[in-house]
Amino acid sequence: MSASTPAAPLLPDQPDARTRLARAAVEAFADRGFHGTTTRDISTAAGMSPAALYVHHRSKEELLYELSRLGHERVLEMVRESVARSEDPVEQLGTLVEDFVRDHAVVHTGARVINYELAALSEEHLAEIVAIRHDIDLVVRGVVDRGVAAGVFHTPDAHMTALAVLSLGIDVSRWFRDEGRWTPDEVAVHYRLLALRMVGADGGRIEP
Amino acid sequence: MSASTPAAPLLPDQPDARTRLARAAVEAFADRGFHGTTTRDISTAAGMSPAALYVHHRSKEELLYELSRLGHERVLEMVRESVARSEDPVEQLGTLVEDFVRDHAVVHTGARVINYELAALSEEHLAEIVAIRHDIDLVVRGVVDRGVAAGVFHTPDAHMTALAVLSLGIDVSRWFRDEGRWTPDEVAVHYRLLALRMVGADGGRIEP
Repeated sequence: MSASTPAAPLLPDQPDARTRLARAAVEAFADRGFHGTTTRDISTAAGMSPAALYVHHRSKEELLYELSRLGHERVLEMVRESVARSEDPVEQLGTLVEDFVRDHAVVHTGARVINYELAALSEEHLAEIVAIRHDIDLVVRGVVDRGVAAGVFHTPDAHMTALAVLSLGIDVSRWFRDEGRWTPDEVAVHYRLLALRMVGADGGRIEP
Repeated sequence: MSASTPAAPLLPDQPDARTRLARAAVEAFADRGFHGTTTRDISTAAGMSPAALYVHHRSKEELLYELSRLGHERVLEMVRESVARSEDPVEQLGTLVEDFVRDHAVVHTGARVINYELAALSEEHLAEIVAIRHDIDLVVRGVVDRGVAAGVFHTPDAHMTALAVLSLGIDVSRWFRDEGRWTPDEVAVHYRLLALRMVGADGGRIEP
């Protein structure tokens, strides 16, 4: 994907068998948890025969792993693109938070599954996902560190503050509801302000 | 419990049968999710016969509900006490966030279960827990609203900011690790600063 291509949605709108299985798995995992979902649940919810999942995936865990890997790689690419749009740490962090928060609100069901079912992954797969999460952390931490070095951010602990900014965005996937009082854009814009205040941008004097 | 009694821990240190079952349930739900856990799993992990859970609880859901109710009532009492310690909105919010965050770091496994397994509750039980969560929200929103009215907090959306402050604390239960780089106190003190910045305390000019 070139840098100018918009980030692909978590699950493209192509109703082939793999996509139907992936969508059914996200809904089932979100509803009953990974361990409370059977391969039969997923296959039948996708409108397929009970064992159909095994035509496309070695196991239920492999399907979770694939959803998780694609989702995390997409977010990593997204935050790298957010940062690449400017040289100014204030603008970089603001854009990153807006993009990250909007995304976690829009695809909240999928984001919830891949953030809260990590413990269900095999050791090897978990290590791979943790490595991508670490790369996402490093992008955010890099922006905060550069802002501190440039004297535009002021925080006693850049590392914990970067974690808190990501944490705030991840938790959006827990509480956001499509029928709720705010749109993804409204949350994204407000969280941009909150994040810039958290890092003490402009000495903490960021006004709405 | 009188107002001067310190908040009780989620699970008191008394190894009676109910407590052993509750502890085993928290660990099992945290590990495999509510739907991935059987009553037999819980009973045997508590060192009891497979059906022992039914001596003390009508069902697995009743046990989750009891954990959830006790945990939420404890947090509601805690945040009310945090706010009662001062008349100053800055001090009230600072103390509330410190207490809330420290608590979610210390009892992170239990907090994770009761925050992320709400969908497993019966409709009636969920309504009861949602009402307690609403009361907790109202305490935080009340502090933010009073700070805005007093001219010491500055935020374009007091409601969303109050939600974000709680959200940041809840997510601590997802990422906090006992063997991690920060103690619960260190996270609590830093998050106090972040929350005061988020509400624009002192015009956003809060210095560490």
